[in-house]
Parts: sequence; C-alpha cells; structure tokens
Amino acid sequence: MAGPVTLPRRVTIREVGPRDGLQSEAPLAVEERARLIEALSATGLPKIEAVSFVSPKAVPAMAGAADVWARVSRSPDVAYSALVPNRRGAEEAVAGGGFAALQAFLGASDGYNRKNVGKSVEESISDVGDVVHVARGADLTVEVSISASFGDPYDGDVPAERVLEVAERVLAAGAEAVSLGDTTGMGTPSRVWDVVGLLRQRLPHVPLNMHFHDTRGTAMANVLAAMEVGVTEFDASVGGLGGSPFAPGANGNLATEDLVHMLGDMGIETGVDLDKLLEVAGLVESLVGHGLSSQVSKAGPRWRGAAGRSD
Amino acid sequence: MAGPVTLPRRVTIREVGPRDGLQSEAPLAVEERARLIEALSATGLPKIEAVSFVSPKAVPAMAGAADVWARVSRSPDVAYSALVPNRRGAEEAVAGGGFAALQAFLGASDGYNRKNVGKSVEESISDVGDVVHVARGADLTVEVSISASFGDPYDGDVPAERVLEVAERVLAAGAEAVSLGDTTGMGTPSRVWDVVGLLRQRLPHVPLNMHFHDTRGTAMANVLAAMEVGVTEFDASVGGLGGSPFAPGANGNLATEDLVHMLGDMGIETGVDLDKLLEVAGLVESLVGHGLSSQVSKAGPRWRGAAGRSD
Repeated sequence: MAGPVTLPRRVTIREVGPRDGLQSEAPLAVEERARLIEALSATGLPKIEAVSFVSPKAVPAMAGAADVWARVSRSPDVAYSALVPNRRGAEEAVAGGGFAALQAFLGASDGYNRKNVGKSVEESISDVGDVVHVARGADLTVEVSISASFGDPYDGDVPAERVLEVAERVLAAGAEAVSLGDTTGMGTPSRVWDVVGLLRQRLPHVPLNMHFHDTRGTAMANVLAAMEVGVTEFDASVGGLGGSPFAPGANGNLATEDLVHMLGDMGIETGVDLDKLLEVAGLVESLVGHGLSSQVSKAGPRWRGAAGRSD
Repeated sequence: MAGPVTLPRRVTIREVGPRDGLQSEAPLAVEERARLIEALSATGLPKIEAVSFVSPKAVPAMAGAADVWARVSRSPDVAYSALVPNRRGAEEAVAGGGFAALQAFLGASDGYNRKNVGKSVEESISDVGDVVHVARGADLTVEVSISASFGDPYDGDVPAERVLEVAERVLAAGAEAVSLGDTTGMGTPSRVWDVVGLLRQRLPHVPLNMHFHDTRGTAMANVLAAMEVGVTEFDASVGGLGGSPFAPGANGNLATEDLVHMLGDMGIETGVDLDKLLEVAGLVESLVGHGLSSQVSKAGPRWRGAAGRSD
C-alpha cells in the first residue's frame, strides 16, 4: 500500500445491528434478538451494542431489553454495551449485569435532540451525569454518542466547535469515551476532517468512535477520511440495518460486512471472520424479512471465484 | 477543510449512464436514449459517453447507436464520446460525426478480456491501434479503458505493474488518455493508491480517469483515495445504473448524483447542477422501470429541509 497517509494497522468495530439496526424494524421476538447477538458474538467482533433500555413506548422494537439480555449466552471475548437514555435506563442495565459499558446519547444541537428525546442538549447533559453516577456505582464506563455531529436535519450545519463543546461537557460529566454520530447521513470527508481534527487536537487522549450512516453514499469514504486522521474505532451494523427516519428507502448504517471486507483487503486487521459474518447477514435477512442494503452480502467477497485469492 | 492531503479544487465527471448504465438494462427506444443524453447535457456535465458501436448481437441494449446519435440535439458545452471495440466501430462513429473522442477498451488481464470480447489482451491492443488509425484520420483523440485494473473475477489480483504495462502498450499504439476500470467492484483504496501511484510516477503526463463500480461498497472511498493521489477525472452513471454481471442485485456504477453531492459539500467543483441532475435521475427511474441504487436520489441533498443551507 503506497497511500499518502499512514493508516492504522488495526481497527475496532462495534457492532450495532441488534440495537441501532433493529430499532427501526418491526419488532422481533425476544429469542430472535438473543440469537442474533449470539451469532454476532461468534464472528470475532470485539464489541457489540446489544440492547437499549429506552422507553418501549417510544421504540417498540427495543422493548424487552432485560429479557433479551438474560437469554443471551454471552461470549467472554466480546465487550457488550447497552444504550441507556437516563438514570432509569442505567439502573435497568446495571440490574441486568454483564455489560462492559453503558452508552448515553444526546444530539450536538438542540434541533435534533428535541425531536429525538424531547429535551434540550443541556437537559440531556444532565442525564449523562445521572448515567455516569449509576455506572460508577457498578464499576462500568460510560461512552456518550453525540448524534448529528456532521449536520442536523433541523438546525443545519453543526460547527466543529459546537461538537467539541458538547464533548467537553459530557467528559466533564464523567464520560470516558465519545462516539460521533451521523444518524442522518450528512457527513462527508471534509466534515470528518474538520470535526475529528479539532477533537483530536483538543482531546487527544479521549477514545473516539465514529458512527456513520450511508444515507447519502458517503459512509465508506468517511471511514477512510477518519482513519487518515487517526480514528481506530467504528460502529457498523450487520446487513446495513437501520435507516434514517429522514430518508425512507435510503441506505442505513454502514454495513459491517462491507467495512470488514474493505479493511481486510487493505491489510487493516479487524479480527472479524468475514465468512461467519456473511452467514449472520443471511440470518438477519430471514429475521427482518426483506433485502439488505449491504453490498458484500450480495456480491460476495472480491476474491470469491477468483483464481488468485487475495486473503 | 483540514484534511491530511491536498485535494483537487475541481473534478471532471464523465457521465456513462447512456452507455455503461443502459447496456445491462432491457433495451430502451431510440428516442428515449436520445432524450436521456439531452437531459444529461443540460446539467453541466462536461463529458458524456453517449453511445456504443459494439455488436448489437452481443449487447442488444446498445443497438441503433447511429440512430440515437443522429437524433440527439447536442450541446456545444459537452464533449461527447463513443465506445468502439474495433476498426468497424470506429468507422461507424466517425461516420456519425460530432464526437470529441473515441473510447477503445480492453482488460488488464486475459481472463476478463477473453470473457468480455473473446480475445487475448494482445489482440485487443491490436484493435486499439486500428481505432487510433481511424480516429486520426478524423482528427479525434482516443481514450482507452483498461477494465479489471483492480482485480479480475477470473484471474484474481492484477499487479499494478501489469496495469502499467497495458497502459504503456496502448499509449504506444497512439491512445492519448487512459481510464482504469473496476467493472466488477474489486477495488479498494490501497489498490487505488498502488496502481495510480505507479501510473502517475511512470506516466505523469497521461490524463487518467477512474471508472469505479460500487459492487462491494467501496466506490466512494476509492474516489477519495484517487483524489488524494492527484486523480481529477471520474466516470459516474446517473442513478447508479449499470451493474456488474458478476453480482446480481449489487450496486452498479458509482452514482453521478452521489458523487456530485459529496464533492459539492467538500468544496470541489464539478460544474454540475445537482437539482437538475436529480430530475434526470427521476427520468431514468421512469425509463428503466425500477428503483435506482443511488442514495441522494432517495434521501435528497444533505441541506434539503435544513434551516442552515450549506450550499
């Protein structure tokens, strides 16, 4: 590889299919959701966002998180996390036991945050503090997802300084890691460089995860851009499950198999067994009952059928 | 933009929808194909691959190229090209008149080339020489598309040195520009850096176009990678029309509207009016009678509906 920039040798993928992926689907049965988490756990994925303790009224597909989690045969090789919106959610997650981290979340700007959780960013920062309080009592770390970090469908462009400010606030509240979310697919490589560049300069020791959606076809380019400025952890969703509510029919999350495939060909380790992951994509397709937006699940790996295998 | 690499300020997009896009669709009527070319001509696209003088038996959707071309109201602002496989095709194109360039083509390796045109690469290089001979008589330039430059579904990986060798051979035969094709979607950013890096080093003054397919979700990342090593011309197909025969159901060509959208947000000029292009995508969808693989055609531009327009 004669690239113009040094890329990481290894990337951590956090699988978000069971949570962000399924939350916009028709609800699956508890045992199906547990089965999906178990299947993903056997692929080599190091981190899985397993369940979400949000209001079942707000997100019906995520109802029964405690039941799902209790049923999962957990792998000792996977760090599982739970998404929690507030103190109540954090307490439910802690009661379930076995998570490595709790994930709190808020928007970078008020427009998206109010639509998503009906609160100002200030109120959500207060919730993050509550989650941290509960998590510390159980010796768990808290990671915070900052949605709309690359643009807000209501408020428009979000300055990098604003994302930095929110990150600093949640870190001050006790969060230990930050994920920058592009739930509505408004990110492009130059925005990634802007925001990540500023955060890496001002918060060089804070673990930084990127959560890209492919709503406008930019997710994989954004991954490359982020790696070029030192990002080594990415969210992805098996099959590309999980669309944006603002773009019906468009692609959803960056697909895990597409990401694993590209990184593998570039010699960047993920630890994920692509063949096993593609089997899980097949399971996902049968569970949700419709086609997937991921590409490698349809085309197969680049070396399949080729005489000169490149793996 | 605080990127790690200087990017071009301006990129040339060559629209290939009327040719590469339509050739895998059910044949359209002559007047529909002409209408599509005219609609694309009004969007600001500087180059359009309009028709293909290949055997109508081999590619029924491309039959009637002379009739399509004769019917098109051509724009003086667009450089139109015709794909020609050999001397006969070149003569037909020259007889039609009005093209700025002829495009010859061959594979980087024998496996793909034999399946595609039933000839060895050597025989195809001889065809390129014939095309150049005819083109020179009509004062036209010849660009050569080298397919399978990033991997061959039959022969496997293709060394960068092999792509260079084929490029040197077609240049020696009189071609003036080279396009590296990834028709089967086997390219990834590191392969782009490998191949383009070598060609730019050894053939620094040869115009280099990239033709990416999104069969495995890597097209847009490949564009970013290519721009980072100095590439300033890309093929794209409106709507993402034009799949790979090796991956049914997978994405096709890089979609023009997705490319224009991303580059526009990055401040890289293309001269293309995205709103007009999205209207053409709507036309394409009605002409082919099925959904498109492009994303921005479904999600709309990132700033649509946002209070703070970024354009």
